[in-house]
Amino acid sequence: MSEQGFVVWFTGLSGSGKSTLAEALAPVLRERGRRIEILDGDIVRTNLSKGLGFSKEDRDANIRRIGFVANLLARNGVGVITAAISPYRAIREENRALVEGDGGAFIEVHAAATVEQCEARDVKGLYAKARAGEITGFTGVDDPYEPPAAPEVRCETGADPPETSLRQIIACLEARGLAPAARS
Amino acid sequence: MSEQGFVVWFTGLSGSGKSTLAEALAPVLRERGRRIEILDGDIVRTNLSKGLGFSKEDRDANIRRIGFVANLLARNGVGVITAAISPYRAIREENRALVEGDGGAFIEVHAAATVEQCEARDVKGLYAKARAGEITGFTGVDDPYEPPAAPEVRCETGADPPETSLRQIIACLEARGLAPAARS
Repeated sequence: MSEQGFVVWFTGLSGSGKSTLAEALAPVLRERGRRIEILDGDIVRTNLSKGLGFSKEDRDANIRRIGFVANLLARNGVGVITAAISPYRAIREENRALVEGDGGAFIEVHAAATVEQCEARDVKGLYAKARAGEITGFTGVDDPYEPPAAPEVRCETGADPPETSLRQIIACLEARGLAPAARS
Repeated sequence: MSEQGFVVWFTGLSGSGKSTLAEALAPVLRERGRRIEILDGDIVRTNLSKGLGFSKEDRDANIRRIGFVANLLARNGVGVITAAISPYRAIREENRALVEGDGGAFIEVHAAATVEQCEARDVKGLYAKARAGEITGFTGVDDPYEPPAAPEVRCETGADPPETSLRQIIACLEARGLAPAARS
């Protein structure tokens, strides 16, 4: 009950590896005895933000909602992992202030693959659609992405394998006392 | 960490005493060592459901969102108190299934003051506005309220003082093992 809650806030372009890392991180932390919830961008859009689009105003509302829910969980000792593009720096900083203000830790993780790297993989085929004009307001193509100035962790997800990024994140959480040492 | 999470789901008309009871219940349960969050209808409309109105569809979306967030908390051991009119039985039952399906307890509390009783007090002046046609789609006046068929607790909030209702609710939580006995 006395464990400090936290939010691992992934930010990065579509296809940069946020969800992959979130899904890999959760079981490691659960294995170490932490309660963990993942708030994935798609899950949140279905359950909390249906009806919101991708204008700046709607994106901001969506990211604020994720922050509101993440904070409710974190201030009750839960470790929350969010995986939404969250392109705007100001809203990420708002959420940081909210979480830290209630005593939680906020760990911003930049999945720093470039547009070129994400587009070369284009797992969901979204970059192709954006280039073809079938999707508009696509982050990194015709909508801005503001990278974090000083994230707690910066993962070179365009070059490194997920295992490397995962180790970086876990090291940060261990350093902050948020992930008890692995059981041997 | 091993405590069962729960949701105390208040339902009842505007002015029936839901928020009053929620605010009175929370400190009692915190005093007994439970982690408690209140999801009040107004707070949720501000933070999760801005842009939603009061059509049946929008009300349902709002109540589903409260259920989604309440369940995230309850499945992590938190005691959640919701205080929204939640007029439709089917959506309340959906939320019950969600919470119970994830191992939480769902305690439906009907704040059973009648329209006449709520209107006689009319704390926020909303019934007068609804009668005057300044507000439309107002529950109990020109929008339906479906009372629970078998709530865990039924409080006669139109007749009894809050202390009586509070005792009923606490007795139910104690019986279910959700509120450790008061420290003496």
